Amino acid sequence: MIIVMKKGADQALADNVVSMIHKLDLKPMPMIGTERTVIAVIGDERAIDQHRIHAMPGVDRVMNVLDPYKLSSRETKHETTVIDLGDGVTIGGEKIAMMAGPCAVESEAQMEAATKAVKDAGAQILRGGAFKPRTSPYSFEGLGPDGLKLLSDAAKRHGMKVITEVLDVRDIDAVAQHADILQIGTRNMSNFNLLKEVGKVKTPVLLKRGMSATVKELLLAADHIMSNGNQNVMLCERGIRTFETETRNTLALATVPLVKELSHLPIIVDPSHSTGKPSLVSPVTLAAIAAGADGILIDVHPNPAEAMCDGDQAIKPDHFVELMGQLAPVAQAVNRTL
Amino acid sequence: MIIVMKKGADQALADNVVSMIHKLDLKPMPMIGTERTVIAVIGDERAIDQHRIHAMPGVDRVMNVLDPYKLSSRETKHETTVIDLGDGVTIGGEKIAMMAGPCAVESEAQMEAATKAVKDAGAQILRGGAFKPRTSPYSFEGLGPDGLKLLSDAAKRHGMKVITEVLDVRDIDAVAQHADILQIGTRNMSNFNLLKEVGKVKTPVLLKRGMSATVKELLLAADHIMSNGNQNVMLCERGIRTFETETRNTLALATVPLVKELSHLPIIVDPSHSTGKPSLVSPVTLAAIAAGADGILIDVHPNPAEAMCDGDQAIKPDHFVELMGQLAPVAQAVNRTL
Amino acid sequence: MIIVMKKGADQALADNVVSMIHKLDLKPMPMIGTERTVIAVIGDERAIDQHRIHAMPGVDRVMNVLDPYKLSSRETKHETTVIDLGDGVTIGGEKIAMMAGPCAVESEAQMEAATKAVKDAGAQILRGGAFKPRTSPYSFEGLGPDGLKLLSDAAKRHGMKVITEVLDVRDIDAVAQHADILQIGTRNMSNFNLLKEVGKVKTPVLLKRGMSATVKELLLAADHIMSNGNQNVMLCERGIRTFETETRNTLALATVPLVKELSHLPIIVDPSHSTGKPSLVSPVTLAAIAAGADGILIDVHPNPAEAMCDGDQAIKPDHFVELMGQLAPVAQAVNRTL
Amino acid sequence: MIIVMKKGADQALADNVVSMIHKLDLKPMPMIGTERTVIAVIGDERAIDQHRIHAMPGVDRVMNVLDPYKLSSRETKHETTVIDLGDGVTIGGEKIAMMAGPCAVESEAQMEAATKAVKDAGAQILRGGAFKPRTSPYSFEGLGPDGLKLLSDAAKRHGMKVITEVLDVRDIDAVAQHADILQIGTRNMSNFNLLKEVGKVKTPVLLKRGMSATVKELLLAADHIMSNGNQNVMLCERGIRTFETETRNTLALATVPLVKELSHLPIIVDPSHSTGKPSLVSPVTLAAIAAGADGILIDVHPNPAEAMCDGDQAIKPDHFVELMGQLAPVAQAVNRTL
Repeated sequence: MIIVMKKGADQALADNVVSMIHKLDLKPMPMIGTERTVIAVIGDERAIDQHRIHAMPGVDRVMNVLDPYKLSSRETKHETTVIDLGDGVTIGGEKIAMMAGPCAVESEAQMEAATKAVKDAGAQILRGGAFKPRTSPYSFEGLGPDGLKLLSDAAKRHGMKVITEVLDVRDIDAVAQHADILQIGTRNMSNFNLLKEVGKVKTPVLLKRGMSATVKELLLAADHIMSNGNQNVMLCERGIRTFETETRNTLALATVPLVKELSHLPIIVDPSHSTGKPSLVSPVTLAAIAAGADGILIDVHPNPAEAMCDGDQAIKPDHFVELMGQLAPVAQAVNRTL
Repeated sequence: MIIVMKKGADQALADNVVSMIHKLDLKPMPMIGTERTVIAVIGDERAIDQHRIHAMPGVDRVMNVLDPYKLSSRETKHETTVIDLGDGVTIGGEKIAMMAGPCAVESEAQMEAATKAVKDAGAQILRGGAFKPRTSPYSFEGLGPDGLKLLSDAAKRHGMKVITEVLDVRDIDAVAQHADILQIGTRNMSNFNLLKEVGKVKTPVLLKRGMSATVKELLLAADHIMSNGNQNVMLCERGIRTFETETRNTLALATVPLVKELSHLPIIVDPSHSTGKPSLVSPVTLAAIAAGADGILIDVHPNPAEAMCDGDQAIKPDHFVELMGQLAPVAQAVNRTL
Repeated sequence: MIIVMKKGADQALADNVVSMIHKLDLKPMPMIGTERTVIAVIGDERAIDQHRIHAMPGVDRVMNVLDPYKLSSRETKHETTVIDLGDGVTIGGEKIAMMAGPCAVESEAQMEAATKAVKDAGAQILRGGAFKPRTSPYSFEGLGPDGLKLLSDAAKRHGMKVITEVLDVRDIDAVAQHADILQIGTRNMSNFNLLKEVGKVKTPVLLKRGMSATVKELLLAADHIMSNGNQNVMLCERGIRTFETETRNTLALATVPLVKELSHLPIIVDPSHSTGKPSLVSPVTLAAIAAGADGILIDVHPNPAEAMCDGDQAIKPDHFVELMGQLAPVAQAVNRTL
Repeated sequence: MIIVMKKGADQALADNVVSMIHKLDLKPMPMIGTERTVIAVIGDERAIDQHRIHAMPGVDRVMNVLDPYKLSSRETKHETTVIDLGDGVTIGGEKIAMMAGPCAVESEAQMEAATKAVKDAGAQILRGGAFKPRTSPYSFEGLGPDGLKLLSDAAKRHGMKVITEVLDVRDIDAVAQHADILQIGTRNMSNFNLLKEVGKVKTPVLLKRGMSATVKELLLAADHIMSNGNQNVMLCERGIRTFETETRNTLALATVPLVKELSHLPIIVDPSHSTGKPSLVSPVTLAAIAAGADGILIDVHPNPAEAMCDGDQAIKPDHFVELMGQLAPVAQAVNRTL
């Protein structure tokens, strides 16, 4: 931690800060500069609340030297985490995890059509929402527990794994019974109690980046889960909010190599929510693979114009088949498999 | 709803859309333009999922004509809502509601000092957090139920009302027992299940704007509460995230008159979280009153450098006294009372 | 400057950095921390290009301790700058500078109507654009030199001062002949050659904050002007781009007291461009005065529905008269005069 | 254009708008909805200033149906533009244009080392800045005319084409004498006079997206150039400003397929300015190629720690050689050549 005193702050004010740092069992190193006094702190700054130091008289700014996240950091664990879902399905290894299916579970017929299509095209993990967070209280909110059953039944019939969103601490057990991966949506990245509770179960968690969160905040959110015991966390870049209006969100693709640098956790890309446009899904997915993504989470719906949720961003099954064909050579070019 | 067809989309595609609109019991009005066909829809567009229409072949864009929120809209209820907390304390009327106190409840001594100070200076509502949402899992998370009791005891001793945050659906009843206003924090504006549940109790709710939410999204979030029964909602502008780093957030003060135009709900301003700098709190509070705010939510701590949460944004009791003195003539200049 | 070495960077890499700092005639102070080595630099860091240091092997991050702006800083000049336009018109003193008039100069009749109206209501400075920066190349771009003359003739007839925008280095002399204040628009805050050239004339400059610029960048832009000789710079908060779509821009009103803290330059607020809505102009202007603004720059048009530029954000003369009446008691409440 | 009247606006106000539309020689189609009257306008709405209509009494909102840009639109010109620089170097065809070199021209030795390295690795176009826009007035601003000569001499010696930035309307002729492509930097995307003037020369232009501009605004800026005669415009995605601080900017890679959908102009990606981190340059460049980029503009410096500008984002020659090797199979996978 670096503490910058205000210009003109006198010796007595700096001494106060120095005493406080001593009291907190850390080692202060004051330096008298040409314009200001700067106090460096040796020791684990994460043990100090920087806001308290900042509130001391004469302190201008407090800058952290260490990153605030620990458990998700590659400095803490050097080897890349590979999450094993069983039956040979893993996330974080050489093989790219393809997660596909409709935004919302709507009916048995819809799930059968969607599941068969994505499985035949090569996906191993089925996505589908039973609990939907909706901006408007007047929109379809999902089939709830019935949807969970339709989803897991379809996955079982076709030998797929299941990823689905959990919105509420009270639903975690029910969702975990049907899901191989619990999805934490973008609106819940900072719902810390929900993070804490999914940290107490064993089911792997896919944590979506908040709409306007930084990568550091995403890693801190992963720490909220991991510090409660669940180490099987994968991160998901799903587009952030920017001023652009032609796409639903803005895919920040450099997040992929950046996360790989800062963290040992796998990173998944969602080309559907990030663009909101079926016509952009294929090029963006190719780019995600080229950038090193460990998996893709993609909306596929047998009939988008009948979809009860986000129909305009889903691609159709034949589009998904074509995309899988285009992906293969790109994956190979970066030494990955599909 | 206005549906814009793609350039070159043929008659058959437009006819499909027209049929779909008829099927949804609304009235389509197709117009053949010089470059594109546009289909206007007469009727309550909020009944249609625009994403489905957008997913139809040949559709380029779908634009809503009506605002998506209803219950919070001034078009729905013309008279301004005044929320009555009892004992003559109201929010939304001529009198400005001053809510003050520490960020977090820490101890009985701290609460006694803070409560006495803000009450003596003229505040009627005591703020203080017992459950704190913290970006880092390694930070102080509040005293929980014990904090609630310290808070309400202090308020009772000094004849004040209480506002405090609720983070978790499982805590609503416990918090409602001690609070006159339930605060929904910025990170939970889109935690729709929490909104739904506070919509089922009778305690008034202060809903903070999400860090990167628009005003329309704030009003839709209010609708989530109100559509479950609780009409006593007040909104709070607490600063949004922008590129500025000199202040903690960016106070969007035009939100105050904008909310008054679009909605009948009272609007509160939080000068502490929006600026994060004690030196900016007074001018920003004066500005909020001049802009028409119905209340102020402000961090006051007897000893900021000892605070366990956000000490660097709290003002001290004597600063608060001075501010109350400056506020009086400004309030009078805009025909309000303190 | 604080240089943070990468975790695991060895002694030799740190020694390289230390040597480089010595070579740049500054004093390095290396500190071996528990996790990383940190090197503090004593001396004027503004003399070093931090990007070079950052590019050295083993360096993780470089943090500046000093603010990058100098001439506009209150640390450089403690007394608030008051700009004198002659004839008793000053900016930055007790009296608030009211600058009003149409967005674009359109005709003699329009200018006569507008000028008479704003002068009668109490404004001292006439605004009006002869060169208009337009997002679309198909929009009206202003009357050019003819517009300048219509503007200054109207001002002379009514005894007012003139503020008008200069877009192009080649127009500075012509504009300076007719203007008392040269306006640099939001799109040109980072047009450094234009800043440099207006720094070489003596006419005072109003520098608008860039649409997504930080306050520090605004102060650095002022330094671009001031370091070329012209010290008569006033800053203008005109709203920044955010995700909000109900207003044209988002007025960041805390900029007013923040600029006063960081800089000695006067700060003006533009309620018209920041909101884009006539119905919000009055409350926002009252708030700006309460926050301590030194002046107001406001669009007033005799007939907005006939305006050739931004008609929908202009207020009408009678609205301006009403606003001036409301402003008086607020100004008085914060010890200013109109 | 769709004009939405306010709720409660009476027939007379709608009639006024209808008359105005007739007066502007367009065809109004009023529709009485359940809650509001909506007036659709048939004809080329780009001929009307929407702000005037918006300023009319009773008008709530005005929505455009047509995109505001014309010349850069794929609706105007269906075939993709291929820009021919001579000697077999083209941009926009099957072959990807690799533009590489240092941020700033510093010396003959530096240019010789850089040019030889990038040419040997396979680049055809040499980049290097002689005029540098710098946020701080205290930073190195480039060698000016001397730099232009060093740059073009190096390119000639190695048989390369030249791209370099022009900042000032007064420098266009001098720069055009030495450059094959004129670069308009991110800070000048809305410097409309500069756009206009480069529209009057024949040298191809690379137009960088403004730091917080939307893609539509980028295309409108291209129209500013093209409407003055110069059709040889290529666009450049160089990262936008977001809340992320770990990278210098945020690369919005979906811009690549989006621009290809909306426009016929080639699109280039700058991995250096968009990330600011050499360690991210390779994965991001692979992703850009996979997404369909027509070219790459990349900082390569023989000795980044000695660079006079942005040393910390440049990659070294051996890194560039390695990247070219990785690019080849990805380019092949998407049917492009290097």
